Amino acid sequence: MSVVSPALNFGPMTEVFQFLMEIDKLKNVQRRNKVLNNERREDSAGHSWHFAVAAMGLAPYADKDVDINNVIRMALVHDIVEIDAGDVLVYDLAGREAVQHKEVLAAKRLFGLLPEPQSQQFLALWNEYEAGETADARFALLIDRMMPMVMNLNNKGQSWVEHNITLEQVISRNLFIEEVNPELWEHLLGHLKDAQQKGWLL
Amino acid sequence: MSVVSPALNFGPMTEVFQFLMEIDKLKNVQRRNKVLNNERREDSAGHSWHFAVAAMGLAPYADKDVDINNVIRMALVHDIVEIDAGDVLVYDLAGREAVQHKEVLAAKRLFGLLPEPQSQQFLALWNEYEAGETADARFALLIDRMMPMVMNLNNKGQSWVEHNITLEQVISRNLFIEEVNPELWEHLLGHLKDAQQKGWLL
Repeated sequence: MSVVSPALNFGPMTEVFQFLMEIDKLKNVQRRNKVLNNERREDSAGHSWHFAVAAMGLAPYADKDVDINNVIRMALVHDIVEIDAGDVLVYDLAGREAVQHKEVLAAKRLFGLLPEPQSQQFLALWNEYEAGETADARFALLIDRMMPMVMNLNNKGQSWVEHNITLEQVISRNLFIEEVNPELWEHLLGHLKDAQQKGWLL
Repeated sequence: MSVVSPALNFGPMTEVFQFLMEIDKLKNVQRRNKVLNNERREDSAGHSWHFAVAAMGLAPYADKDVDINNVIRMALVHDIVEIDAGDVLVYDLAGREAVQHKEVLAAKRLFGLLPEPQSQQFLALWNEYEAGETADARFALLIDRMMPMVMNLNNKGQSWVEHNITLEQVISRNLFIEEVNPELWEHLLGHLKDAQQKGWLL
């Protein structure tokens, strides 16, 4: 888990470029979802981009107290800890709990490569997202969860089928969406029930 | 170039999710640079994420009139047109010119999938980036150009070597960096000359 190579001197930007070379590794972290119409699994860098663009596109449907620029920034940093801790399936509750300490250490190591104030800024964004208490973090989490679900609905339930996921699991892990946006939840629930009918969810 | 599948109804969010499924294809657009320490070429989605995080990290070194949130948004949308038009090497000047009309059509088709006001917002960001006239666009272009150069400097000049790129080409295509940030340019120029000494640039 060491940094790629000796830092090239870029004056005051040296540490930032070194951090950027280190987090290039997020392009190697594979997720369970496949890219649509492709056999390749999506990686966490591509997912983070997709999530951030989704925040831009879904901005008009967020509550008024949501700061979309902050949501976009959370999207960009939320998975960086996976470089050290790996990606764990959202329905693997034991795995998610086991990885939490690793993620805290990863955040310390990776964001610690940055100078101040960026180091504290990145860490604060990641902590806010993980705590899931602010309106921004809740809207971010909604998008992060919607992306693989909508991809599965457009991809014959690919990652659900591969991991024997049940309708009940998907509902219980994502029920908070009903509080954040009841109308979206109603549509989603209908599609999830259809997916079960089609055999994409147990 | 048709949209992936019939749109799932998500109420007012329907068109945005359909757009998001369509731009999933950016994860399939391969660039010339390889991911560090990996044989896989990076894709334009992962690059866009990397560029956006770089904007966050490099924010303190931008001129005061630069709006970093706008730079981040440009990073997120700047390559979406490659879904239809493909990625063209920055040093392939004839290829870059030939692809420009395709990119305009691609922007119209892809951003046209969004409802208003998002459609106009995304198109305006892409146009601002392409025109390269505002302080935001110039700082964005600086980062977009720095990323593959710093990756090459950390990867034995991989994409330069593969395409027989000369030091002169790299300097002439990136000389605008000297105007935007003279100190950064000075450091970069030193590294580029070292790279030529090492045989990574002709």
